[in-house]
Amino acid sequence: MGGVITLITDFGLEDGHVGAMKGVMLGIAPTATLTDITHLVPPQDIRKAAYALLTAYPHFPHGTIHLVVVDPGVGTERRAVAVRTPSATFVAPDNGVLSYVLDREPVLKAVSLINQRYWHHPVSPIFHGRDIFGPAAAHLAAGVPLEELGEVIDPGTLVTFPVSRPRRQPDGSIVAHVQVIDSFGNCTTDLPAEWLSAAPDWVVEVAGRRIPGVRQTFGQVAVGEPVALIDSENYLMIAVRNSSAARDLGLDLGDEVSLYPLKV
Amino acid sequence: MGGVITLITDFGLEDGHVGAMKGVMLGIAPTATLTDITHLVPPQDIRKAAYALLTAYPHFPHGTIHLVVVDPGVGTERRAVAVRTPSATFVAPDNGVLSYVLDREPVLKAVSLINQRYWHHPVSPIFHGRDIFGPAAAHLAAGVPLEELGEVIDPGTLVTFPVSRPRRQPDGSIVAHVQVIDSFGNCTTDLPAEWLSAAPDWVVEVAGRRIPGVRQTFGQVAVGEPVALIDSENYLMIAVRNSSAARDLGLDLGDEVSLYPLKV
Amino acid sequence: MGGVITLITDFGLEDGHVGAMKGVMLGIAPTATLTDITHLVPPQDIRKAAYALLTAYPHFPHGTIHLVVVDPGVGTERRAVAVRTPSATFVAPDNGVLSYVLDREPVLKAVSLINQRYWHHPVSPIFHGRDIFGPAAAHLAAGVPLEELGEVIDPGTLVTFPVSRPRRQPDGSIVAHVQVIDSFGNCTTDLPAEWLSAAPDWVVEVAGRRIPGVRQTFGQVAVGEPVALIDSENYLMIAVRNSSAARDLGLDLGDEVSLYPLKV
Repeated sequence: MGGVITLITDFGLEDGHVGAMKGVMLGIAPTATLTDITHLVPPQDIRKAAYALLTAYPHFPHGTIHLVVVDPGVGTERRAVAVRTPSATFVAPDNGVLSYVLDREPVLKAVSLINQRYWHHPVSPIFHGRDIFGPAAAHLAAGVPLEELGEVIDPGTLVTFPVSRPRRQPDGSIVAHVQVIDSFGNCTTDLPAEWLSAAPDWVVEVAGRRIPGVRQTFGQVAVGEPVALIDSENYLMIAVRNSSAARDLGLDLGDEVSLYPLKV
Repeated sequence: MGGVITLITDFGLEDGHVGAMKGVMLGIAPTATLTDITHLVPPQDIRKAAYALLTAYPHFPHGTIHLVVVDPGVGTERRAVAVRTPSATFVAPDNGVLSYVLDREPVLKAVSLINQRYWHHPVSPIFHGRDIFGPAAAHLAAGVPLEELGEVIDPGTLVTFPVSRPRRQPDGSIVAHVQVIDSFGNCTTDLPAEWLSAAPDWVVEVAGRRIPGVRQTFGQVAVGEPVALIDSENYLMIAVRNSSAARDLGLDLGDEVSLYPLKV
Repeated sequence: MGGVITLITDFGLEDGHVGAMKGVMLGIAPTATLTDITHLVPPQDIRKAAYALLTAYPHFPHGTIHLVVVDPGVGTERRAVAVRTPSATFVAPDNGVLSYVLDREPVLKAVSLINQRYWHHPVSPIFHGRDIFGPAAAHLAAGVPLEELGEVIDPGTLVTFPVSRPRRQPDGSIVAHVQVIDSFGNCTTDLPAEWLSAAPDWVVEVAGRRIPGVRQTFGQVAVGEPVALIDSENYLMIAVRNSSAARDLGLDLGDEVSLYPLKV
């Protein structure tokens, strides 16, 4: 069989929990390729997990299974789900961690993972990663049909957090928003690079500062200077060379970034 | 061939040492699946390594090889051993790191790894992980019989640290002990959940505080409150929701936790 | 097909970037074994990356592909290269990160990775790991000939940093230099152990202190004492037992370590 399963969790790397989950999965799908994306999501940080997934999943082979276990609601009524889109299958708690995926792709089928036959028993009420989510991903990799894992649900009922959108102003300027802040303090916005083709260049205004132009690389500004550039996912990012834009500019999630077209 | 080899070390993730060990192992067993449990055991912390192993190993497929290299005695007279139990084979220094395994399972065969034919030469006196333990695990995965790796030894001579046990008092109460403290400050005790079925519920006394009842999940108490619950390995755990029980309650390894049956 | 690809980067383990790179690689070479050496190289620290590679690569099977992405010059004119030696193939920016390899091995062939057919498109100007280096390593693992990836270049033009060398003095003493400092503060020098066979033992002088003799293991000195010993790569190392030699002795890269032969 084979197949790739990626893993995103907030379990950390110090204990045996990631290992326990992988052990269960390898018992079900011995030839699956388990590929860590990250296990260092800050505890219960659904938004960071969602963005780590967005950064990585579009680059995996068609049909990859992406397992995301950041699950502050473990043991409550939140659903455990598997969601198939045209590109991949996602296994996760139904808590918003798939928001960016659902914002970008149609859902072909979604299932609530209630078929206990595919759980790892006894199920710990505090470790569904090992006992429900991990086994579901592994059974999918081993060839079990998606709908076997539980009950088909209406994709419209899946929980999502609001994904912000940039907007064009009547004067041709754009208002974007800080969408995610990485561990270096780089602030990615919700503005796709395509929007910037409307003018030859732009002045960027953020946190009361004006940044002239959108650059190709960090190297085009001096160390310690703010820079606007296109990140590896093709979004506008605000950074400070060799420093943290979040700290130096006092930026937070949702903060506005304005762009004014430069006349030629 | 194939086969799963898990890895637990205190090498950290910053240098090339885990890589060097894996390189040697892949040279011996190219199709083995090397699965990291953790490389962030605090330096030379045998007890933490033993517990990471206990958390993970029961969930791996039958016949998995578990490699544990936390080895403060490298270069001294301590033995290097491979130990087979009904569930798995363990390769480790003979320093107590297998204590929980040996407490729970009979030993089918134990070998001292003195057959230099299966070492990686030249053997560094300070890196037996790469040159003795890793190769032994890889040779086992590649099909070398256990007894080929050295000299059969009496399992009774294997080094163990004392594994604490809970005790029942004449009045029906139970005295348990903090057995391990994880990186979040959660304190797992030596009390298996089964002991709690003797009463409908319990009052837990720890560090001079009384905690009413054993809960199913963290969510059943307020943030910052202590909670007694059953951990994913089915032991009683003392935690503080969204905080550290070790710090907030001043708990340390070996500390007593008392449980009094609630009459109905 | 198969084949082993090792990975060294400074991407960290918190974001989705390592995952994105692996996703691209698994799409090109589904059966390759991706083995992490480290992703925790300090940002842009070419020397640490070079040493992590030196620690690990000699122990991998013949023909392994080693991918190193520590790339402060991303988006500038620095070349992306693949370099074949008798032992392995290395894929990296041409910025010195292969210095130790080039110091030890002849180059059989070197190629500048300019064939865009083997890039991952669209190429981000700030993420060549995902879009140029990773794909090159994966195509090699999948059987693409080295020279297909670009233009053959003169190995003599490859960028290297100076690799220091020990020197023998007329009086029989040796002057060595601190070559790398690991995360524990252990200071490895440029002195191969073979040089020490010229005398039965040596007095080591470093940072104004005299250390009597070269030991086999840490255990041969008291806790907190400095010790000279042979590291796992067979170089002289200055350490302090259970502490940091860099901090305790104030050592830095390039610092001199003198050795005087002990007369018998």
